[in-house]
Amino acid sequence: MDKYNYGMVGLGVMGRNLLYNIADNGFSIAGFDLDDKKIKELQEGATSEMKLKGTGTLEDFVSALETPRKIILMVPAGKPVDAVLESITPLLTKGDIVIDAGNSYFKDTNRRIADLASKNLHFMGMGVSGGEKGARKGPSIMPGGDLEAFHLLKPMLEAISAKVDNEACTAYMGKDSAGNYVKMVHNGIEYAIMQLISEAYDLLKRGANLNNEQLYEVFREWNNGEMNSFLIEITRDIFQQKDSFTDGYLVDQILDKAGAKGTGKWTSEQAMEIGVSIPTIDIAVTSRILSAYKEERVQASQLYPKNEISTPQNTEVFIKEVGDALYLATLISYAQGLALLVKASEEYDFQIPLKDVVKIWRGGCIIRSVLLEKFYSAYTQDPHLSNILLNKDIAVIVNEKISSLRKTAAFAASNGISGLGIQTALGYFDAYTTESLPVNLIQAQRDYFGAHTYQRIDREGVFHTSWETAKN
Amino acid sequence: MDKYNYGMVGLGVMGRNLLYNIADNGFSIAGFDLDDKKIKELQEGATSEMKLKGTGTLEDFVSALETPRKIILMVPAGKPVDAVLESITPLLTKGDIVIDAGNSYFKDTNRRIADLASKNLHFMGMGVSGGEKGARKGPSIMPGGDLEAFHLLKPMLEAISAKVDNEACTAYMGKDSAGNYVKMVHNGIEYAIMQLISEAYDLLKRGANLNNEQLYEVFREWNNGEMNSFLIEITRDIFQQKDSFTDGYLVDQILDKAGAKGTGKWTSEQAMEIGVSIPTIDIAVTSRILSAYKEERVQASQLYPKNEISTPQNTEVFIKEVGDALYLATLISYAQGLALLVKASEEYDFQIPLKDVVKIWRGGCIIRSVLLEKFYSAYTQDPHLSNILLNKDIAVIVNEKISSLRKTAAFAASNGISGLGIQTALGYFDAYTTESLPVNLIQAQRDYFGAHTYQRIDREGVFHTSWETAKN
Repeated sequence: MDKYNYGMVGLGVMGRNLLYNIADNGFSIAGFDLDDKKIKELQEGATSEMKLKGTGTLEDFVSALETPRKIILMVPAGKPVDAVLESITPLLTKGDIVIDAGNSYFKDTNRRIADLASKNLHFMGMGVSGGEKGARKGPSIMPGGDLEAFHLLKPMLEAISAKVDNEACTAYMGKDSAGNYVKMVHNGIEYAIMQLISEAYDLLKRGANLNNEQLYEVFREWNNGEMNSFLIEITRDIFQQKDSFTDGYLVDQILDKAGAKGTGKWTSEQAMEIGVSIPTIDIAVTSRILSAYKEERVQASQLYPKNEISTPQNTEVFIKEVGDALYLATLISYAQGLALLVKASEEYDFQIPLKDVVKIWRGGCIIRSVLLEKFYSAYTQDPHLSNILLNKDIAVIVNEKISSLRKTAAFAASNGISGLGIQTALGYFDAYTTESLPVNLIQAQRDYFGAHTYQRIDREGVFHTSWETAKN
Repeated sequence: MDKYNYGMVGLGVMGRNLLYNIADNGFSIAGFDLDDKKIKELQEGATSEMKLKGTGTLEDFVSALETPRKIILMVPAGKPVDAVLESITPLLTKGDIVIDAGNSYFKDTNRRIADLASKNLHFMGMGVSGGEKGARKGPSIMPGGDLEAFHLLKPMLEAISAKVDNEACTAYMGKDSAGNYVKMVHNGIEYAIMQLISEAYDLLKRGANLNNEQLYEVFREWNNGEMNSFLIEITRDIFQQKDSFTDGYLVDQILDKAGAKGTGKWTSEQAMEIGVSIPTIDIAVTSRILSAYKEERVQASQLYPKNEISTPQNTEVFIKEVGDALYLATLISYAQGLALLVKASEEYDFQIPLKDVVKIWRGGCIIRSVLLEKFYSAYTQDPHLSNILLNKDIAVIVNEKISSLRKTAAFAASNGISGLGIQTALGYFDAYTTESLPVNLIQAQRDYFGAHTYQRIDREGVFHTSWETAKN
């Protein structure tokens, strides 16, 4: 009996879809799950061309694979991954490769790489983005770690991933847990863009009184132009989805309490840890937290009645401004996330090729957008660009649209519509592009009360002053 | 020979000053430091009334103290604390109390409490705020942990702390490491207020062209009214400090790169960890990070020339608006920090008495302000208030000043002056006081691409939809 090329542990929706995708591309693959029902579903959903089989014991699973074994894990991050590794590693032999395709924390991956290396096994962290459909039809795939192991997988990864201009949306993301790290930041940027779209929605709905049909039209138009992206596209779709319980649209029946799975939080924590400023991602994380305080919000809304919103005079112009603001704030959110990758690459010696990152994000993943073409071009010009805002072509776009971002942020502030994402994107931009910030005062205060010392603009050294108390 | 009432480990500026303060209040105290010079300085700076002595070995130090020994540590947080504990605990006897008065991470304190408990010793975490002068003349002191041990220290703590209306600025902050936790959040709020003051400075300086003399006058006036607080007071002082190297004012010569010691970062991480939204504290932390990217900022400032600032028509009105905005954004920053304490108190079972927290912050500490009187009154009305914004008297103040905050945030956005602190305070307020946020859309998106499910506003349960793709 022929052995199978690949193995997949975890046959939930994501695992099953990725398995089918691999089988569709001519690779044979065995699946393992403890749940018999999932094995049955796997067999039932398969086409006759697929070379696959489901197994219910790890022994059957492992012995069905050709060596070196290439085993993909698609199980929830955290303890489940460790549990699988504990059970499966005793059955493996030297040179086998285990690829973790879940959203594992990068430090866990580093630990597991070392652990499996001590058993002469390879362990790789690999980010996969695209949701259920992406997994089935072509995701963006972010592998990192052992280069030799990566090359064994490369033909398969290139076959199953999304394609843009005939180029596969997968590439080597760097050493150690770089694959997980890049995926984590991808998700952080995803949080920011979703927050920004929700604010644009709020501004158009409450600010300009657009109904769902009109919102559909706006997002349709946006998606047909320079804002073309997966998240704008699905937002368009959402506005035309009718509700099955009521006469109206589904979006109006959904409760405004957001869930979160943790990758956004990790991104923010990491940025603080290694000293990179990503306020629009931070605010997206904290806004989801705030949304959960629904009862308090209802109570507070009664204590703080809002003034009537001053509807803009020209709706068309307003829509255009909000669109430009969304476009630019999205660009700035990518800039923050990419700057984090640059710093992390140094900090952890990941050697992340930023050019390849934006290249493979162009298709398959949740944050794919035509905007990434411009970043790809920027990194092609300078692979070591520390911040995407420092590219001249990007500057042209930003300077063109910045007044719309200012107007939109000011409109939100004036009218009591929370615009945390838009405002932090603008505030970040204004701080990042200001030569002299008022931080000299903060340093003066710190030296005043805590003798923390300060530097000067006109001479080298570190200074402390005995500050005089003024007569009040 | 009489034994000493207290012991102090670490005779740096803070330790020495706190020791003198204790001695001033009639308690005898022995100090220990490995550095002979510091012991010498301690003796030289003492008055003849003080009953104190410096020791250079832990054996001499420990044997000089009455039992149960009460030993205060004022050494840098982290490894130095563990190093001291490792050396000193073998010399202690059952019932002795070690009080860590540094900015230790609360989880470290929990670990040390357990460790010393296993040796029949008490360990307490105690926040001390007020800088060098506060330590000497009367700080705000936030002890937590073992209640029995606390009661042994109470008379001394009440004697040495700052006083407001004859009441001591110290109280029991709760179980375990509550003292460190409250101090950490105190520092987080401090970060936010300093950020806000720096933004007000920038708005007045660049927006209204005020010079240092005029800024001094503005802050002097602010400090004489409802904005009276330590940080406004020292900002006033800073604007009149002449430079010793040049003809001008010192503040203009200080480099705009802020340092940070970590407690702000811990606060932000904690808030994310336990699910509380504190965006103005987060932004203060990330703004300090951003300030450090000075070279990139200079480079970016050339790519993104700013438009001329449209100076406000009426400077007096503008100053009043900025002042009200600063006052309100400060209030909202306290609200965020206090909400974090409420949640942490539940999460870790600290049993933090919020009323006592704001009471003892009224004097001695860096964030002392007359505004705290209003919070004290709010918690007196309802000790379990989940957010200070839900108090009716606070609502009156906020509703009175909210239009100034809106105008100031809009002015900053329109004119390219980064107002991250002011804008996040406003955005937080607007989100917190909005019954229906646009987060329904985020939940729709999450369900669309990741099948993460959603709740509805009109019926119980968890729902998933197979979203239809629109024809574009």
